[in-house]
Amino acid sequence: MKSHREVLKLNIPSRMEFVNITPQVAEAVRKSGIHEGLVLVNAMHITASVFINDDEPGLHQDYKNWLEKLAPFDPSPQRYAHNRTGEDNGDAHHKRQIMGREVVVAITEGRLDFGPWEQIFYGEFDGRREKRIMIKIIGE
Amino acid sequence: MKSHREVLKLNIPSRMEFVNITPQVAEAVRKSGIHEGLVLVNAMHITASVFINDDEPGLHQDYKNWLEKLAPFDPSPQRYAHNRTGEDNGDAHHKRQIMGREVVVAITEGRLDFGPWEQIFYGEFDGRREKRIMIKIIGE
Amino acid sequence: MKSHREVLKLNIPSRMEFVNITPQVAEAVRKSGIHEGLVLVNAMHITASVFINDDEPGLHQDYKNWLEKLAPFDPSPQRYAHNRTGEDNGDAHHKRQIMGREVVVAITEGRLDFGPWEQIFYGEFDGRREKRIMIKIIGE
Repeated sequence: MKSHREVLKLNIPSRMEFVNITPQVAEAVRKSGIHEGLVLVNAMHITASVFINDDEPGLHQDYKNWLEKLAPFDPSPQRYAHNRTGEDNGDAHHKRQIMGREVVVAITEGRLDFGPWEQIFYGEFDGRREKRIMIKIIGE
Repeated sequence: MKSHREVLKLNIPSRMEFVNITPQVAEAVRKSGIHEGLVLVNAMHITASVFINDDEPGLHQDYKNWLEKLAPFDPSPQRYAHNRTGEDNGDAHHKRQIMGREVVVAITEGRLDFGPWEQIFYGEFDGRREKRIMIKIIGE
Repeated sequence: MKSHREVLKLNIPSRMEFVNITPQVAEAVRKSGIHEGLVLVNAMHITASVFINDDEPGLHQDYKNWLEKLAPFDPSPQRYAHNRTGEDNGDAHHKRQIMGREVVVAITEGRLDFGPWEQIFYGEFDGRREKRIMIKIIGE
């Protein structure tokens, strides 16, 4: 069994944004030399997500509006007890649960084994600081 | 390390439906000859889910009602900017995020290592066309 | 390839609660002797979750309030058709879908390869009975 590890770093200038990281994951798979296996991609921060969906700007705007409705940004400790800690990101911890922490993708014949529209996104919900994304690959 | 890959194909006649695919996944595990490992099962389409829950029709009806409330079907581009692309499935991309893309299940002694009620479902949110489901198994 | 399997048992005295199980997972990784690999941690029951987030009591209270709003406890079969079966836990099956069934975590140099605040939680939504959690590790 072989394994390969990489950590991506991103610093998103806005509070909420989605970034297509498929090229970086595909490149990590290539570098790993692993032909058959699994790749785990996860946010290393708890106010961020990694998810798979469509690279379509209208959809991303829809997601932002929807997440804002399900868990509105509100720095006050009245809505989010978490903000009593001095943080203002209670909403971001909720948005992340909807969109998920991680994806696991099959590797077949040395490549990401995807359906036609699958793309991997980093979802930031509390940006304007450096965040990290884990890529861990195991296989042969 | 051994690996095994299969792709299931389904064509669901309605827009939203849940289908128990546990027998097909169990059969893939058997065919793989893998005794200890992990199996990844994921929707290869971005308006569909793979999830684990109970095979109980009342619950499935509850899920449909709940998802319809959280992300109503609406072909207009007013509610979903995604539908400006000519698609009418903006809602399906949202429902899929709630129910998830994938499951990873332990394989122990050659079998799916499940709790008493765990069953694997394909969740379709934009049916009436052929869709694919990835089964990727690694282990020994 | 090596593999290791453990099952944790918990009996939560309340209906809904979150329990930090990171120490038990870290100990399973140590016992496995696996240095590079993946660990799957999943609820073996369908009214419970395993998820990764912050170990902060205010946030956990926020999650409980939010989940109660998204899928209120209601034993009647009017709100949840699932409760026609004689169960009263229709809500718990919905809460579990928001919080997820499982996490997959990288193992690097024999340890959980985590970001600074990542902690693994068992999320119970229908407690007061014994429940089980799967830990399955593969790697080398």
